[in-house]
Amino acid sequence: MKVTIVGLGLIGGSLAIDLKKRKFATEIIGVDINRENANEALKLGLADKIAPLGEAIREADLVILAIPVDKIMAVLPEVLSRIPNHATVTDMGSTKREITEKINSHPQRKNYVAAHPMSGTEDSGPHAALEGLFKGKICIICDHEKSGPQHLALIEKMIHSIGMGIAYMTPDEQDHSTAFVSHLPHAAAYALANAVLAEEDRKIIFDLASGGFRSTVRLAKSSPSMWHPIFQQNRDYVAEALDVYIRYLTDFKDKLKTEKDSELLSLIKHANRIRSVLEGGNHSLIKNEEKNVKFYTKK
Amino acid sequence: MKVTIVGLGLIGGSLAIDLKKRKFATEIIGVDINRENANEALKLGLADKIAPLGEAIREADLVILAIPVDKIMAVLPEVLSRIPNHATVTDMGSTKREITEKINSHPQRKNYVAAHPMSGTEDSGPHAALEGLFKGKICIICDHEKSGPQHLALIEKMIHSIGMGIAYMTPDEQDHSTAFVSHLPHAAAYALANAVLAEEDRKIIFDLASGGFRSTVRLAKSSPSMWHPIFQQNRDYVAEALDVYIRYLTDFKDKLKTEKDSELLSLIKHANRIRSVLEGGNHSLIKNEEKNVKFYTKK
Repeated sequence: MKVTIVGLGLIGGSLAIDLKKRKFATEIIGVDINRENANEALKLGLADKIAPLGEAIREADLVILAIPVDKIMAVLPEVLSRIPNHATVTDMGSTKREITEKINSHPQRKNYVAAHPMSGTEDSGPHAALEGLFKGKICIICDHEKSGPQHLALIEKMIHSIGMGIAYMTPDEQDHSTAFVSHLPHAAAYALANAVLAEEDRKIIFDLASGGFRSTVRLAKSSPSMWHPIFQQNRDYVAEALDVYIRYLTDFKDKLKTEKDSELLSLIKHANRIRSVLEGGNHSLIKNEEKNVKFYTKK
Repeated sequence: MKVTIVGLGLIGGSLAIDLKKRKFATEIIGVDINRENANEALKLGLADKIAPLGEAIREADLVILAIPVDKIMAVLPEVLSRIPNHATVTDMGSTKREITEKINSHPQRKNYVAAHPMSGTEDSGPHAALEGLFKGKICIICDHEKSGPQHLALIEKMIHSIGMGIAYMTPDEQDHSTAFVSHLPHAAAYALANAVLAEEDRKIIFDLASGGFRSTVRLAKSSPSMWHPIFQQNRDYVAEALDVYIRYLTDFKDKLKTEKDSELLSLIKHANRIRSVLEGGNHSLIKNEEKNVKFYTKK
């Protein structure tokens, strides 16, 4: 199967490696408007060839958009209009409401499957691509009932081939959940980096930074061209998540300042529960291979 | 040399492994009021024997307190009073102002060296002990001029033997810097865990949690008995750090809500600088072996 990947950075490049290794793709055609990235991707063997968008679309059985969400908004309608009748289109964007609304009345809507793999690193570009990046993680599929069954089946097969489980949600549910579980941690890390950069000498930060600080602030290294449009497209839910987070931080600070020490201890102990939530495997989509699909939609 | 380690958890246990491996210690006497921990430490080979505090002190050339900072406050004066004349005492506590103030007028003050290794994990107990935990990290020494030169030299030698660099600071400087670089990230993680636990279904958190969320919230798993007294002893600086952090978060949220998108982009780009600060090696204490000592004190 010929797979066209638009955007050969961290996500597109990692997909390229895995889809080729799993023999899901026999040929990968890469598209990248950044010529330097395109050359690097070719050198790294992420794509068999590089082609302009129009040409790459004409030949493809499957087109994957692995570009920032503002670029998906711009390119997706055009791609849907120009693909061969049989071809499937998916995207890897972190937001889903605006993107799906944009193409819901498109005549080729059924060829599109809205997807969001919950996986990544703080690095970007073709050299950031990693084999096995998606293994053991979840991919969200939105509005699956709006995709044609063959197109949905192909994307489900692709997701399983790279070792991911699937969670089905509405675009609104996905944008709300990822606001808390993914977008908020990024905003929190950006703000933490700025706070510490403002207050501490850079040499002291470097010298004293232990694994704990590095881990908490890691996401602050993430690409602005990827994250700025995510915040814009998920503005309301990210702002809501930030409101909640600031409320919890303020509560922590107030209890500390006013020496409500037993209440402070309760906050710490309650937060400790995240350990069992993150490590508890009995409700895993992944470990239980037979049911590695989950519907969150309550409707 | 006989080394007594009081507290055989993550820090004490990891020290025991390295000090034995590097042949800095010929015998390690362990003290742990928690009988279960003591037995586990013995089984893991972290100590050659377990003894009650009084007995373990009498025999030691070096006593290391690797217990929560409230316990250090309680035990340190007694230990100083009971050690043999020649023996050295150090502690591994994350705060230094209250601890050093407590013993500054102690007749054995010169036997004590105030230390804080900037290293750890979110786990605790003897089973959390790791070989090489300290390698490549920094250990802060405070009020070094108040320690006898032989005692200071011994602790410096110990720190170097486990692969750490040294930064000399006043207790006040250390408490301020660690408030931002270590204590704030812990408070931020505790609050993030509580915010997400309150807002999202636990199964959704587990299923969707990617590496990014796990990394940002990791420190929220840290031990309450270790961290609660740290926040208490460094109350003012941690509250100050939280104030600064909340200000930066609120600024981020306001720019997002009011669609000041170009200013939001600037915040993200500014935060990206943490990458070069954390990765920039030219001012490393560690890489440049000949000068792996740094004075931050401006006086």
